[in-house]
Amino acid sequence: MDTPIEPRLLRGFRDFLPQEQARRSAMLDTIVRAFETCGFLPLSTPAIEYADILLGKYGEEADKLLYRFKDNGGRDVALRYDLTVPLARVVAQYRELQKPFKRYQVGPVWRAEKPAHGRFREFIQCDADIVGSASPIADADCIAAVILALRRLGVERFLVRIGHRAVLNSILAKAGVMEVSEQLEVLRTIDKLDKVGEDNVLEMLAGLVGRDRGDRILASLKSPDLSLLEGEANIAHLKAVVDSVRAMGYGDVVTIDLSIARGLDYYTGTVFETMLLDLPAIGSVASGGRYDGLLEMFGVPEMPAVGISIGVDRLFAALFELDQAPKVLLGPLAVVCMMGEVAKDKGLALLASIREAGIPAEAMPEIEARLKRQLEYAARRGARFAVIIGDSEVVSGTATIKDLSTGVQRTFLQSEVPKYLAECRDAN
Amino acid sequence: MDTPIEPRLLRGFRDFLPQEQARRSAMLDTIVRAFETCGFLPLSTPAIEYADILLGKYGEEADKLLYRFKDNGGRDVALRYDLTVPLARVVAQYRELQKPFKRYQVGPVWRAEKPAHGRFREFIQCDADIVGSASPIADADCIAAVILALRRLGVERFLVRIGHRAVLNSILAKAGVMEVSEQLEVLRTIDKLDKVGEDNVLEMLAGLVGRDRGDRILASLKSPDLSLLEGEANIAHLKAVVDSVRAMGYGDVVTIDLSIARGLDYYTGTVFETMLLDLPAIGSVASGGRYDGLLEMFGVPEMPAVGISIGVDRLFAALFELDQAPKVLLGPLAVVCMMGEVAKDKGLALLASIREAGIPAEAMPEIEARLKRQLEYAARRGARFAVIIGDSEVVSGTATIKDLSTGVQRTFLQSEVPKYLAECRDAN
Repeated sequence: MDTPIEPRLLRGFRDFLPQEQARRSAMLDTIVRAFETCGFLPLSTPAIEYADILLGKYGEEADKLLYRFKDNGGRDVALRYDLTVPLARVVAQYRELQKPFKRYQVGPVWRAEKPAHGRFREFIQCDADIVGSASPIADADCIAAVILALRRLGVERFLVRIGHRAVLNSILAKAGVMEVSEQLEVLRTIDKLDKVGEDNVLEMLAGLVGRDRGDRILASLKSPDLSLLEGEANIAHLKAVVDSVRAMGYGDVVTIDLSIARGLDYYTGTVFETMLLDLPAIGSVASGGRYDGLLEMFGVPEMPAVGISIGVDRLFAALFELDQAPKVLLGPLAVVCMMGEVAKDKGLALLASIREAGIPAEAMPEIEARLKRQLEYAARRGARFAVIIGDSEVVSGTATIKDLSTGVQRTFLQSEVPKYLAECRDAN
Repeated sequence: MDTPIEPRLLRGFRDFLPQEQARRSAMLDTIVRAFETCGFLPLSTPAIEYADILLGKYGEEADKLLYRFKDNGGRDVALRYDLTVPLARVVAQYRELQKPFKRYQVGPVWRAEKPAHGRFREFIQCDADIVGSASPIADADCIAAVILALRRLGVERFLVRIGHRAVLNSILAKAGVMEVSEQLEVLRTIDKLDKVGEDNVLEMLAGLVGRDRGDRILASLKSPDLSLLEGEANIAHLKAVVDSVRAMGYGDVVTIDLSIARGLDYYTGTVFETMLLDLPAIGSVASGGRYDGLLEMFGVPEMPAVGISIGVDRLFAALFELDQAPKVLLGPLAVVCMMGEVAKDKGLALLASIREAGIPAEAMPEIEARLKRQLEYAARRGARFAVIIGDSEVVSGTATIKDLSTGVQRTFLQSEVPKYLAECRDAN
């Protein structure tokens, strides 16, 4: 025997054991159903893309965080960093797709970031996007999908903050930050407001553009004079988005916040972030915005697009922390306890009939074990009932059903067991 | 503007557009529900593992097919090749997990194989395993889970072939192939029986162990004399597995077939393959077996384990080919057509109320478009109803619902629209 390999995980990666995974699946399902209610259709793309598909879309910092490698054929490939750029590739690749193209996608993405509280190297994104419409109603619809999903998850205390990249750039220009690369640097710095606080951001801005201009930028963000910007198409769009969300009855959970910058380069218009009011420190749980220029990088000009992404891992971690994650019943309703070789055939037949009736059930595989141990197994599995078949039950064609929560035992004809269990399940 | 990037996919990888993805999701859901009915619980593990976790478990050929690379921290990592080895790692890492540990896992795996018909470099596996039981009932239970899943998918014409690695090795030993590495080579060759046919396998065996021994091996496989092997514990186990599956009422879809070898090194006992009788050429759609030694490689001795894996991509491709994939209704039930700026607010409020009632609905985002274009959009989206709000409807508090399948129009109070749509949906 060789030396055993130490079982271990890479840092920033996680296993989800059944108790947690069952609850995560239930939540993910709720989100997907909400997106479908809003008319988004499912899409699936691969985990691996040619590197040039992904590079140069997110920004220099992000490009460094790609899991990029040469595959066995020497191709330059990378794991996807988000689901937005693959969507842009898909729309460019299959020109026949009807526009506006409304899709959702759920899947893991990978970023080689420094792991931290609520920040992982592999995490699931759940995106809703609309490609091919410049209408502010499209922006509002993406935001509405997230609001519906959060509400169905039982989350009420949250705020969607809506900003606008071009308006922010115009504020920067007015403060004398004119060059695009400098603007991007400033935007990335402003994006850290929540994380590091105003004083630190001011320090960083001072280093970038001087204390004076930094002061002016921060002041404009804190109390923006929208009237100064009045008449700009971008301001009109931003207002129309917020008005549309309000018209849907969600006015209490949205607000304009021009300090929202988002770290990714591809955003061109509105940008969104969603904070949980009871856990603001974990950052945004649903973010997005308009990326009207991204499709052009794949050779499709004038194809406006907008989307939003729920960071479900962060959201779920928060819901667990707030004890708001749904409780999910795990495990079978019944465990069949077969007392030895003689009972096995009848027991397995009974098990199959219970399952055919759609009732989660299993057998204790160690049929030589004594009844006490088999009942312990059934209880550990979370089953409410033990269905016991021993020698006498084989002779009489019966089974003994023990309710593990009350200890009460009753005897049934084997043929009647599935029906009885179904009634017990439906009564709950 | 830089030169556009050509939107393209890596060979062996696939996009699934909404029409197909919706049907795949529905099928995957059916499989997962069947596994849950059989008492398996969900588990999730990362896509990336330390390379040494994966290496040396599958065999030399397979090791070469790993997507293996250095991550940004210089760690030797690889994308998972299957879901079984990660499961073994999990059981070894979290010793507190209750045994037998019954889990299912659904997720993509990656293999740098030569792409071919039904063979992809990224594909989804859907596994059900039981760790911690040596009982043949555990083997049978994994097989039963797959049978239940296939039946719920409407697949009736299939056959699960059950072999046994140790019995096969004993046949090899009797034919004079004694050395383990030589046995593995022979097993991998036998594994190709379905793919390349008997004559080619015989040629390959002749090259490995000589024509004479090759002949004898193939003859023993074709008409195995089980009585010669009678009394062996392995034969008893194999028979007990088949008997248990029969006791569950599934005798017509299982058979003993000692030529089943499976390509992976970690199998030690029973091995399973599942052929679709109407499409045998695509190979096995659900395979697995016992791997009682795998946990020991992670330092956990005497931890028997058995599992089965549905190759859902291959299975779904087959179901599409056989036209047995379920039809899924895509898209919203209703599209709200808002005729201009005046109608927008009422229209969006109505849209939100329809969605709150759980009815899939969306709005045409281009509210300046004429009614004809908005109705075309609704039809293209597959909606059955267009809910029209124009100036007159705003004044009267009504909406006009047009049934796009019949052309019939009716007028409703806006507040009654969700109820009416719900009734129409439930009537179908």
